[in-house]
Formats: sequence, structure tokens, C-alpha cells
Amino acid sequence: MAKDKKMVESITSMSEDFAQWYTDVVKKAELCDYASVKGCMVIKPAGFAIWENIQKELDRRFKETGVENVYMPIFIPESLLQKEKDHVEGFAPEVAWVTHGGMEPLQERMCVRPTSETLFCDFYAKDIHSYRDLPRVYNQWCSVVRWEKTTRPFLRSREFLWQEGHTAHATAEEAEARTQQMLNLYADFCEEVLAIPVVRGQKTDKEKFAGAEATYTIEALMHDGKALQSGTSHNFGDGFAKAFEIQYTDKDNSLKYVHQTSWGMSTRIIGALIMVHGDDNGLVLPPRIAPVQIMIVPVQQQKEGVLAKAQELKERLMKAGFSVKVDDSDKSPGWKFADCEMRGIPLRIEIGPKDMENNQAVFVRRDNHEKTFISLDELETKTGEMLDTIQQALLDKAKAHLASHTYEAVCWDEFVDTINNKPGFVKAMWCGCQECEDKIKEVTGATSRCMPFAQENLSDKCICCGKPAKKMVYWGRAY
Amino acid sequence: MAKDKKMVESITSMSEDFAQWYTDVVKKAELCDYASVKGCMVIKPAGFAIWENIQKELDRRFKETGVENVYMPIFIPESLLQKEKDHVEGFAPEVAWVTHGGMEPLQERMCVRPTSETLFCDFYAKDIHSYRDLPRVYNQWCSVVRWEKTTRPFLRSREFLWQEGHTAHATAEEAEARTQQMLNLYADFCEEVLAIPVVRGQKTDKEKFAGAEATYTIEALMHDGKALQSGTSHNFGDGFAKAFEIQYTDKDNSLKYVHQTSWGMSTRIIGALIMVHGDDNGLVLPPRIAPVQIMIVPVQQQKEGVLAKAQELKERLMKAGFSVKVDDSDKSPGWKFADCEMRGIPLRIEIGPKDMENNQAVFVRRDNHEKTFISLDELETKTGEMLDTIQQALLDKAKAHLASHTYEAVCWDEFVDTINNKPGFVKAMWCGCQECEDKIKEVTGATSRCMPFAQENLSDKCICCGKPAKKMVYWGRAY
Repeated sequence: MAKDKKMVESITSMSEDFAQWYTDVVKKAELCDYASVKGCMVIKPAGFAIWENIQKELDRRFKETGVENVYMPIFIPESLLQKEKDHVEGFAPEVAWVTHGGMEPLQERMCVRPTSETLFCDFYAKDIHSYRDLPRVYNQWCSVVRWEKTTRPFLRSREFLWQEGHTAHATAEEAEARTQQMLNLYADFCEEVLAIPVVRGQKTDKEKFAGAEATYTIEALMHDGKALQSGTSHNFGDGFAKAFEIQYTDKDNSLKYVHQTSWGMSTRIIGALIMVHGDDNGLVLPPRIAPVQIMIVPVQQQKEGVLAKAQELKERLMKAGFSVKVDDSDKSPGWKFADCEMRGIPLRIEIGPKDMENNQAVFVRRDNHEKTFISLDELETKTGEMLDTIQQALLDKAKAHLASHTYEAVCWDEFVDTINNKPGFVKAMWCGCQECEDKIKEVTGATSRCMPFAQENLSDKCICCGKPAKKMVYWGRAY
Repeated sequence: MAKDKKMVESITSMSEDFAQWYTDVVKKAELCDYASVKGCMVIKPAGFAIWENIQKELDRRFKETGVENVYMPIFIPESLLQKEKDHVEGFAPEVAWVTHGGMEPLQERMCVRPTSETLFCDFYAKDIHSYRDLPRVYNQWCSVVRWEKTTRPFLRSREFLWQEGHTAHATAEEAEARTQQMLNLYADFCEEVLAIPVVRGQKTDKEKFAGAEATYTIEALMHDGKALQSGTSHNFGDGFAKAFEIQYTDKDNSLKYVHQTSWGMSTRIIGALIMVHGDDNGLVLPPRIAPVQIMIVPVQQQKEGVLAKAQELKERLMKAGFSVKVDDSDKSPGWKFADCEMRGIPLRIEIGPKDMENNQAVFVRRDNHEKTFISLDELETKTGEMLDTIQQALLDKAKAHLASHTYEAVCWDEFVDTINNKPGFVKAMWCGCQECEDKIKEVTGATSRCMPFAQENLSDKCICCGKPAKKMVYWGRAY
């Protein structure tokens, strides 16, 4: 009973304390929990089922573009990590070091992979010989470890799950095309499946990946106006190839370096799902990613035939390809309604004796609580339509939020005022110098999120130093 | 070209050197490769695709029994590993220790999980309160690390991939039922999907899992007559529950300990696939697990219409639900045939100008090289029938091999003679004392593989000491 009560306790409201609201949703929707291992998560069934759906859909899209899955070792010997200078500088301060195997000290310590560029490069150096061996378009699903100081469930933890793609190509053009292809794949996935609109663009040199020539990113805007980097794709040029001696014999018999890319999306994206769609009643999941799309709640279930009818509807909907459950527990309908809301189940179907008399059911949308009476003759088609409607409504709402929280600034005072008072993105011109980027961060706490592919010319001058502008940048505070 | 040549080089024959044959198949079928990290594997696309199929099918079967997937941390603090006495003794000598995070030494060192009982127990202790919370039937897919001294691809490596299920139940009976259910699930999966017959039974106390009350196992017999433990399921009783204080309030308000199980299957099983079905031409994959079931090889592909026809057949077979590829490379048909054989593709379909004239194709089975001419009007149905026939033939052959390599012995001399001269299982009676088990291992190198569920009474006396026999045991040398 104590547990039942806990479930219907309301959560902190978003407007009162957004960070606490987030923690409450993660906990009450039973997505994940803290582990005894500091900074690590236990991803619970409801959370992991979301990740499984993300994996399934991303993996399908990857394979359509020729990606093959592999598995590389979990450990990186220190000497291997150190082969590419920028890369080791970026990662060495935040890795976990293994120093003993069994009872004995290791001759060379190894880190638990924070990312696997060095392992793929080491493998490619041995495995690629001829132009016939190219391209290599490999990916792995695994966990990685980064020794973060402050952690938050899904958003920043010492271990997280992700996929990391690592490719090798004969030419710079091919590598660039693959880098962009994967960024667009991520962006399309976010919009089409997660109902999260994103800004596509390039990271500045300051913000790019350690060892990359160019990093592309998709940036999403959370409900509180903070940005979340949701997926990245890196073009390494031949920098790693030179450090690791990855060469191939071309058709003309000349020896050439390969060109490489890597790209990743992680369990962080579950944090984005929560913070883009959630509300004061809990989680809100888009139908295309929800592990349970429909919860059928019997009303007056002790009455004859109600539970049987609920089961019948479930069977019909399952047969039609929907993911559906019946809540036939001994809780009250009110408790069940609140529970469905907390867990973000997109559609609730209520069925009671009166509905049965009228050959109908009550559809209740999670996103706007709208109620509709549906004839049972049209159960399957109306369910499909309703889920499509919800999916589209969530995307529209998130798009509207992104648009209404994206501002422009053309002078320093306006910029600082906007950043400080209007949560969201601020578009502003930039000269391209890191000094200005550093100053903006120092004064406002905002970072350059990306130089969007869709450039606009807001003015000719850098917002910070007044020198000629080179790029329009999205600035914002970020998770 | 160097690479082409390498591919058609023949491999070491099984009869000449089975261990070298195994290594050759793993390498030439491009299943996996050694990594720069000693004792760790790089699982290549052809190997990982097999693992993906294993995962997909096992996961589906798990979920049908109510299993939910979760993810636990990769690290176990030393104090947590030490909570259950037998367990820590079994695993502490072979774990990898993390001692530093970033630049700083850790206050308490952690091991990389060798198995996750302690993490699940730690979680269940916090998460289970009432009988309403039971049963918990969780599973995770992950990698684990055991610091082995000698390693072989798939069979024994310092890191391997597996699934580990961990359950908590209200009663001892429920836990026992789940332990057996999962063992039978593994056995059925091996026989129905991998075409590997197994012996189901219980491990002796000497061979059981560290911390378990009972360990059940499935044992398969490799082509060379050595056994391979292919999956295990453990009943922990309330031993871990007492060590970790995992208690629940029962309906009568009394506080009780839960009863637990765990069960796992790993990438080792790919080693079994290779060593049960492979032959001197390379890998042989059962159709139900093969990532590519059919390779279409165009003959005289430069002739008009041949490649188009091959593509047409591919489209038809894909539409019918088969996994199929066309080898339209510039290699010779002979090279392609050998390549298909090496990779273990169950069915090869050859199509050339003459076949096209006759509206036919040539079907060649991987398992027995049998050729059949098939009318293209019956392409889909004949393909389905042929794959079923191959699947059944592989199972029948493996069953016959298991039967013909399982011996009985009723006295010590006969036992030693059989073990030493006839590779395979030897069934023999045992008194139940570890001294006899130790002596048998010392003298013959064979270990007790299991006490089969299907007991027979071969004699009344222990093969070793002559005292009254308690159990019939399968003995054998093992991987």
C-alpha cells in the first residue's frame, strides 16, 4: 500500500523546479535508478525498453545505408590511446584505468573505452590493404565510461550506452558524404520517430571532437530552454590514418591514407525525450517510440464481462500490430489513469459496462487529455489514426516551442539581455575567433551550440568584438 | 589479388589438426580476429551477425516467458563483490581491477563485472519490498571480463558477450521452476535453431557456479569428441538474499527472504556452432541462424541477362522472407563457390545462360554438396523446403555423432580405456564424493560434465571407488 500511495503522489511541477521535476519523472516513471557504483545508472525495464526501441529503429536505418555491426574490445592499452595527440588530450583526464588483472599488476595499464576510435584504427591498420577493402562502414552498440565529476541520470553518467560508428573511405569526398549522411540520419530519426525537432550544424573548433577535422551536431531544445547535443558525426580526414598508418593500395598501385569518420548517439537521447515532451503529470512518449502504446483500463472491472471485453480489445489491437496492455490490477481506475500518465503511455482506452452497452470505448490522449468515444467497430483504424495524430501533435508542439524560443541578437547588450532573460537559443553573428567564444561563455554561461547549415546574415559584425562576421551561430546554455 | 588467393587456399584438415582447423575457420570465414589487447577479440561482421541472430531469437523466447531487459553498471565495488563468500572466492582471482578514475586514485577499487549477481542483489535489496514486487525476472545483454591465462577465439577470451538473467521469487519452488524453465529454453534453442543436440543435467558440487545451490547445464559434443558447456542455469536458494538482505513482506505481513536464480549463454556458443557443424571446407551454418541463408552465384555473368536474372531471383527470395545475396564480384565461379563454402552459407544457387534457357537454377547444399535442378516456377517453395531439409539434416547428423560418441563404462579400467581412446562422453556411475571426481580428473583429464536428468542405472558401484553409486554422470574432456 505504501508503494501504491507513492505512485499517485504528485511530482514537483516544471515551473517550480525543472531539475527536480526531471528527477521525479525519471524515478516515478521507473526509468532508471542510481546504483551503488557512484555516478552509474541502473536502467530499469521501462527505461531500457525505450532504449531497445531506439536501437531497433536506428539499427534498421543504419543497415539500410550499408552499416555492418562488429564488436571491439572494452579495453584500450595506454600506448594505443596516446597515438593521436589531440585525442588523448581530450580523453585521458576522464578515463577509468585498469591496473591489475587477477592478482597481478599489468605490465601496461589500460583504460575502459571512453570511445573507440583508437581500437578501430588499430584494427583497420591491420585489416585494410587494398581499395577493394574500402569502404569499411562498421558500428558497435556498447557501453563507454567517462569519469565525470557531476552526474545526472541519462544526461551525464560515468557509464552510458551508445552506438559508435567508425568508417574508413578511399577519398576525402566519400568520408565527408558519410559524415553528413549519418548526421542527417540522426536528425530524421529524431524528428520522425522521437518527435524532436533539431538544429543541424557544425561545431566550432573549440567545441569539436578531440581529433576531428569537423564535427557536425544536432541540437535539440528542452522544455526549460536549455540545449541538448543529441547526436554527433565527425570527419577525421586522414589525421588518425596518419597516426595509425592506415594505408591502402589504390587501383594505380600507389599507397594512400584512408579518410575516416565516426558518429554516435547515446542514452542521453532518453533525457531529451523526457525534457522535450514531458509535463506536470509525468512522462509523455511519442507513439512511435513508446514500448507500450496503449493501456486499456477496465472500468467497474468486477462487473460481468468487463475484463473479458478488455482482453478482447487487447487481442484485436495486438493483432493489428499495436503494443498494448490491460491494467487489470486491483487498483482504482483513478489510480490507473494517473499511473498511465506518469509512464507516458500515449493512448488510454477505458472500457466499462456502459461503454459495452453502447458498443464503444473511451479514448484518452496522453498529450492533451482529450476524450473521444469510439465505436468498437472502428477500433483498429481509429487507434492507428489517433496514434498518428498524437505523434504529429507532439512534433508540432515541440517545433512551435523551438521556434518561439529561438531569438536573434545583433549587438552585445541585446545578446546578453536575451541569453539572460529568455531561455532558448540565440542566433547571433560571430567573427570565428575563439576569444569571442570564450568571452561569451565567461560572461553569460552560454556556449556555441553550432554553426547551422541553414546560415542567415543577421548583420555584418561579430556580436562580441564587432569585427567582420564569418558565421551565424546558435548560442545557448546546455546540458 | 593477394587477398583473393588467400581466400581459396585450403585450410588445415580436421583430422590433421583440429585446433588449427578451428583457428583457420575462424580466420578465413572472417568471424573474429585477435585484438591488440591481449586475450580480447574483435568480432567481425560475419561473426557478429551470427551473434545478432542468436540474440534476436533468444530474446524473443525470453520475453515470451515474461523476462524484462535492464542494464546494470559495468563496475562492482570490491566490498560488494565480497558480500557472498563462495562467490568472491570463485571470481576474485580472475577479475580486472580499476584503481584510478581520471587522474585520481579511487577510494575503493572496483572490478569490471565478471558476472553481475552482486549488482542485481544490491539493486533488488533496495527495490523489492512486498510480495507484490515479485517475481522479478530481469535480464541484460552485455560484455563481461575474466582474466583468463590462455585464450581462444569465442571459446575462452578475457572479454566475451553474453546475456545474464537474474530473477527473484517469493518461494523456493518458483525459483526452482524458473531455473529449469531457462535451462530447457536454452536446450530447445540449441536443438531447434542451432541444430545442436545437448545433454541436459545438473553439475556436481565441484563444478557448480560459485554461490549456487544447484547449477543445471546443457553439454554439447564437438566434432573432436570434446564437450562444450553451452548454457547454464543456477538456483541460488536464499543464499544471496541472506548475504544482501533481500527481504519482502508477504501477504501475512511476515518478512521473508527471496529465492533467486541466474542463467546465461555467451558468444562461446558460436564456438560450438563451428565445431559441431564445420567441415574441411570451412564453416557450416544451420539455415535458422545463418545471417546469409542463400548465395546466388551467376555463371558466365558477362553473358547478357545473367546478372539481371540473378538479381530477379534475389528479389523474389527476399520478398519470400529469405536472407539472400548475389555474388556479382569479378571473381571466377569456382572462387565464389569455395568462398560460399568457407563462410558456411547453407544454400548456393547457381544460375547461368543454359539454366535460363531451361527456366531452372542449380541448388547446391552446403552440408552434403548435393546438386538439384529446380524449376524457377517453384523457386520460393523449393528454397523453403531445401533450407528445412538442411536444418534437419544438420541436426540428425549431430545427433548421430552424439549417440555414436557416447559410451558406457562399468569398471575403472574400462572407463580409463574409453576416455583415453574414444573421444566423446563416457557415462559411468559415481558415489557422489569429490575425491573420486578429483581422481578421475587427475588420472584422465576428464571432468564430470553433468548428472543427466535422464538417469540410467548402469551398475550399483562407483566407477572409481567401488562404493555404492548415487548418480550416473557424463564424463568427458571439455573446452
